[in-house]
Amino acid sequence: MSDPITSASNPQIKDLVRLRDRRHRDRTGTFVVEGYRSILRAAEGGLVFERLYVSPGLFLGSNEAQLIERIAGTGTPVIEVAVEPFRKAAYRDRPEGLLAVARQFATSIEALQPGADPLLFVVEAIEKPGNLGTMLRTADAAGCDAVIVCDPTTDPFNPNVVRASTGMLFVVPLAVASTDETIEWLHRHRIATFATTPATETLHTDADLTGAVAIVVGTEQYGLSDTWLERADHRIRIPMAGAADSLNAAMAAGITLFEAVRQRHAGRLSDSNSGGIEKSHG
Amino acid sequence: MSDPITSASNPQIKDLVRLRDRRHRDRTGTFVVEGYRSILRAAEGGLVFERLYVSPGLFLGSNEAQLIERIAGTGTPVIEVAVEPFRKAAYRDRPEGLLAVARQFATSIEALQPGADPLLFVVEAIEKPGNLGTMLRTADAAGCDAVIVCDPTTDPFNPNVVRASTGMLFVVPLAVASTDETIEWLHRHRIATFATTPATETLHTDADLTGAVAIVVGTEQYGLSDTWLERADHRIRIPMAGAADSLNAAMAAGITLFEAVRQRHAGRLSDSNSGGIEKSHG
Repeated sequence: MSDPITSASNPQIKDLVRLRDRRHRDRTGTFVVEGYRSILRAAEGGLVFERLYVSPGLFLGSNEAQLIERIAGTGTPVIEVAVEPFRKAAYRDRPEGLLAVARQFATSIEALQPGADPLLFVVEAIEKPGNLGTMLRTADAAGCDAVIVCDPTTDPFNPNVVRASTGMLFVVPLAVASTDETIEWLHRHRIATFATTPATETLHTDADLTGAVAIVVGTEQYGLSDTWLERADHRIRIPMAGAADSLNAAMAAGITLFEAVRQRHAGRLSDSNSGGIEKSHG
Repeated sequence: MSDPITSASNPQIKDLVRLRDRRHRDRTGTFVVEGYRSILRAAEGGLVFERLYVSPGLFLGSNEAQLIERIAGTGTPVIEVAVEPFRKAAYRDRPEGLLAVARQFATSIEALQPGADPLLFVVEAIEKPGNLGTMLRTADAAGCDAVIVCDPTTDPFNPNVVRASTGMLFVVPLAVASTDETIEWLHRHRIATFATTPATETLHTDADLTGAVAIVVGTEQYGLSDTWLERADHRIRIPMAGAADSLNAAMAAGITLFEAVRQRHAGRLSDSNSGGIEKSHG
């Protein structure tokens, strides 16, 4: 290790603070991953780290040394930071003494490689960065092959997305694209689109969600755009006993995705040789 | 209306600010409901208001007058407040010019009156007040008869619960009780308990969730306590393709509750005279 950073005015600490700002992230092509669990998942997911900052006085557990050794072993510089400047650089109120600067990765839709009979989750716009994190966690749990955000202004490297995803940003393939690009790409890959909307009679449990399927969810406040409602192959709704706005977008996504998991699992029990849904149960 | 409040040091403004503090809420037996949608749902739910504060300069829509008239018609004093002191009293960054002080209502488990074949949602502890709000919204969407929180320290009148529930706190019956009380009450009412846990082979989709059912969910970090795991009638798990901690507690609740809705809906189609599930589809 190089000499520890002891001053909060050190240029590297200032750089970490500036990475809260999107322009600085985009300019440098980097972003910050914080905490043991997220950094571990990022390392497992093959993320490229530029620098790892550690502050042993803040470590919570005893596994940090192993993770640091693993990351240092890939040639990543490890820089020790005193507690006070580390607190200044950290995004969390209770920092765990681990901060990594990582290279942004491609989120182009053309980089996605759907396998056989994929299950995809498409969200038209993200109202709060934390919601995308929750959606990525849920998509991971449901064994989704990818998540597509149809709003080109979304920044998946926003610290709140990174935090709320608890590292799933590095596990679930993610694309950011326009609605037109997304519809064209899904059509080209022969993936059937199911738009969730209150304005249909078909319940999500009555639709056939096996095969190559993309579940499409709109914003909590306005629902899906006319473009999606008109151009999707199917429209489905979750039955609502109460107020029309009772489910938030992430919850609607989770309920529909796990209905797809149920149907795919039922299919798997009767045909254990079908390969396309392996990931959902691996 | 009485004379408008124009000073931020008015005792009523100070009282509103102090109601952010639980001790003051408990001492006065009151709490604050903010914004058009929440106050409307509270009025519809029969909540008793002590005072309604209005600041017409902050109104967003044109329906406020009707809501104010409705509440004034029940004998509730309506007090006009200038924009500056109103902003001081409001909890939201962008206040909508409507703040009500309401009487706390009973959340004793003995006050719950389960109908035939109820669907209940039980959560062992609430990690963040906002999560309870999300759970109440989801429980409403699923047509739950009641939500029970097994942590006697939970304050359902916390402003973050009220806000995150978007008024559902006044719609879905809610009880706060100890785990022992809850188990005893559910047993006495012959309601079958389904504890969600990764440590079982039974999928939530393979369990029979029709009839009188309580879905029990633990905390995101630690899951359910041994007490619940041992004393529940059944244990079920949501199949997880990815990391074990991918679903947050509210999401696990939503997915399991909507599986119950699916099963109950299927039963209803084959037996349209069964009355106990009417609320799920009303």
